[in-house]
Amino acid sequence: MSFAPHGNHLIAGEVVASPDRFTSAPADGAGLSVAEGGAAEVDRAVAAAEAAFEVFGWTSRDDRAALLDRIADAIEARGPDITAIGTRETGLPPARLEGERGRTTGQLRLFASHIRDGAYLDRRHDAALPDRTPPRPDIRMIQRPIGPVAVFGASNFPLAFSTAGGDTASALAAGCPVVVKGHPAHPGTGEIVAQAIAEAVRASGLPGGVFSLIQGSTRDLGAALVQHPLIRAVGFTGSLGAGRALFDLCARRPEPIPFFGELGSVNPMFLLPAAMAARAEAIATGWAGSLSLGAGQFCTNPGVVVTLSGGEADRFTAAATQALSAVPAQTMLTDGIAAAYRAGRDRVAATAGVREVLTSVCDRRNATPYVFETTGADWLANRDLGEAVFGPLGIIVRVADADEMLAVARSLHGQLTATIHHDAGDLDLARRLMPVLERKAGRVLANGYPTGVEVCDAMVHGGPYPASTNFGATSVGTMAIRRFLRPVSYQNMPETLLPEDLR
Amino acid sequence: MSFAPHGNHLIAGEVVASPDRFTSAPADGAGLSVAEGGAAEVDRAVAAAEAAFEVFGWTSRDDRAALLDRIADAIEARGPDITAIGTRETGLPPARLEGERGRTTGQLRLFASHIRDGAYLDRRHDAALPDRTPPRPDIRMIQRPIGPVAVFGASNFPLAFSTAGGDTASALAAGCPVVVKGHPAHPGTGEIVAQAIAEAVRASGLPGGVFSLIQGSTRDLGAALVQHPLIRAVGFTGSLGAGRALFDLCARRPEPIPFFGELGSVNPMFLLPAAMAARAEAIATGWAGSLSLGAGQFCTNPGVVVTLSGGEADRFTAAATQALSAVPAQTMLTDGIAAAYRAGRDRVAATAGVREVLTSVCDRRNATPYVFETTGADWLANRDLGEAVFGPLGIIVRVADADEMLAVARSLHGQLTATIHHDAGDLDLARRLMPVLERKAGRVLANGYPTGVEVCDAMVHGGPYPASTNFGATSVGTMAIRRFLRPVSYQNMPETLLPEDLR
Repeated sequence: MSFAPHGNHLIAGEVVASPDRFTSAPADGAGLSVAEGGAAEVDRAVAAAEAAFEVFGWTSRDDRAALLDRIADAIEARGPDITAIGTRETGLPPARLEGERGRTTGQLRLFASHIRDGAYLDRRHDAALPDRTPPRPDIRMIQRPIGPVAVFGASNFPLAFSTAGGDTASALAAGCPVVVKGHPAHPGTGEIVAQAIAEAVRASGLPGGVFSLIQGSTRDLGAALVQHPLIRAVGFTGSLGAGRALFDLCARRPEPIPFFGELGSVNPMFLLPAAMAARAEAIATGWAGSLSLGAGQFCTNPGVVVTLSGGEADRFTAAATQALSAVPAQTMLTDGIAAAYRAGRDRVAATAGVREVLTSVCDRRNATPYVFETTGADWLANRDLGEAVFGPLGIIVRVADADEMLAVARSLHGQLTATIHHDAGDLDLARRLMPVLERKAGRVLANGYPTGVEVCDAMVHGGPYPASTNFGATSVGTMAIRRFLRPVSYQNMPETLLPEDLR
Repeated sequence: MSFAPHGNHLIAGEVVASPDRFTSAPADGAGLSVAEGGAAEVDRAVAAAEAAFEVFGWTSRDDRAALLDRIADAIEARGPDITAIGTRETGLPPARLEGERGRTTGQLRLFASHIRDGAYLDRRHDAALPDRTPPRPDIRMIQRPIGPVAVFGASNFPLAFSTAGGDTASALAAGCPVVVKGHPAHPGTGEIVAQAIAEAVRASGLPGGVFSLIQGSTRDLGAALVQHPLIRAVGFTGSLGAGRALFDLCARRPEPIPFFGELGSVNPMFLLPAAMAARAEAIATGWAGSLSLGAGQFCTNPGVVVTLSGGEADRFTAAATQALSAVPAQTMLTDGIAAAYRAGRDRVAATAGVREVLTSVCDRRNATPYVFETTGADWLANRDLGEAVFGPLGIIVRVADADEMLAVARSLHGQLTATIHHDAGDLDLARRLMPVLERKAGRVLANGYPTGVEVCDAMVHGGPYPASTNFGATSVGTMAIRRFLRPVSYQNMPETLLPEDLR
């Protein structure tokens, strides 16, 4: 490995140390000594971001697109180093990190082309009607960037949902400087990606304050960042507990700001009878693959399946158990995530009416899949079963009939995704389920598996609470830029005073 | 007056009484005995709204457009009765209420044509790429209605921002049932408009739960409504204190919901030197008219002007004082608003460095304009001067130079509007002000006055806090519908299971 991280912050292009330090706990090798950021580093980074916004917020779309392309290039130039340190820190295999790097640079380039196109500006013009009573003035509208944005990276996507992930890419595309709170599980990966961004900012001739990375492992750091008066919005991917705490801080500010948090989901799959009769084993195998992919550490991991009890359910459970029992132990992202996985497994196992179908092991940081079964009635009586367990844990809910399947659907919390497996004979039941699932999830799938979130124009990676804290937003796909824009109207404004994109 | 209000709730098309009642305090004549709603009425109305959503949320756009047109027709059919009771309750003159009725029905018909057009659905389609590695699924996106919406009417627009105002019109257009918390200052006006809506709902063959009006005068009623678990969003126009309290309740719910509050603004006007040299008196007269229109009871009332000290400022103040001293006393909307106006006047008058220029009177419910002057330095030292006083009260801030004018601009809270009066010689200063004002306000005007909010596609009636609680939204114009929609993606979904608008 040629990249040797210094373990410090990167604030407005400068390496900054802190007196306090923590030691990271990588999956492989010795920990890294990392600067522990706090209120002072937040002040410095956000002040630089605010100053940078006075330039960056008025750059041309072409200039920002060039910045995004340069960041992608700079990340690719560091590809082998990123994979080397990323693998050590997260335990994810090299192929996964290489794929995720492609997703990350693809996302940056997609936002570059999205802003070059300009449709996202949603420009509107109501021309003056001087002869109307009363006369109508000339009114033009455009979407403008909001100012400095705070981003909290996720542990499970150290590239695509972290330092230069979708939140950062969409905020920079909008014209908003970004202050990233680095994830303590991958500080070295964060540092090398931050260097790539800082290099691109310099090469673009932009102020260094356009981007900062503050390292740290404390809740106080995150709290200071979201409460800074000059931060205008927050992008977050992580746990319900941490996310809700930050959401509450944002809402309680003297001047509240939006908190765009993506907090997890059990991503239920509804297996309809004709589809099950035709291919219970194939669906079970597909489910097993989606459930155990990446040690089940995906927000869209399908942790719950709902099926009619009976012979098809028996076939499904047998095939799923067989496939999942062949999955080798996989390294989880952090000791804390592995501990939470064990605690979640114990909570599910201790719930009345729940039966363990596949017993497995989860030692310090390695996990294999667990499978449980319960009845629709027990599910409906134990609302806690609907809380996500992060990891390869599946619950099969056997319902008595179609009405109970609908009742289970209605009982769901908000979800990132919901899936129906159906065949031609299932259309009546599918038609009853669709209006319920549409209200529960940001994305509804037919005959597929929810892991694999396409980065495109039509993607919604969000949904009702707690899947996200803001059901109107997505954190993946081009619509993610909307979170960091606000509409402004200009009335009878001479062209010379209008924003460049309105002239 | 042929309309005799019964003073009860109208819940899902049925007249409902409550054991507790309050007596309204109209500007003219005897008070009305009005039912005092509470948690029981909220439960009943919201349950009916949720049940109605299962039909209404899947109606065609044509059917909802027909409903909106019918509501407009039913309001017009009651025109003289609405003006008669509205005048008595609010003290607003008949011509104003007739104009506001036209604005209200125009708004309803505008949303009808807006949804017939369908562009608001923002339909997107990323077609499948089966040969890509990995294959891309077919993904379609559309904006869908969110479910039952709570609306709080404003006292100052008893028609256009109340029972059938912009919040109600945009929510119904989206496909969301509405529960209105009636304003206690105009319960009879609210009742007759609610009857018009209920008649249109019946004539459209829709479930009664599509619309309910709950009367009441207590904070508990509003609190129960925004905390009801089946309410998905809130539209509100009113005071900062009441609005922030409801915002906080929405944020603290187990499942937080968006609160779209429009909470007031001082709408600063910046008078640039060349414009002042050319036409200080004309600007002063225009300002006086905008400031005192409707007893200054507009959210966009320009309560603050900022100008360079010196001879032009003297000319401006003299002309404004002359124009405003000729304004007769006007009836304010409620006793409480008149009392708050007096308290605001006393607060401003007691601030260090503030001098009263036009002394006036405000008895029980009648007000004339007040004008104060202060320096830029005193303004910057007294941030409370930036808090809105609802009524015809103006503060003239005399700044030492252009830099101090910019400092005052930077010191502003979030605003609904900000205005520049400029001439050709002012362009350099105007260019320095624009980026500051753009960040402070939802609408920036040149050489005009902010009262008079056009209902159109390009309008933004919103802005940074406290002008609104959600800087990404507008409560006026067709973009207001976005508040009540959420994006949903459909992956590999057969056409027969897609929402009608995606087929």
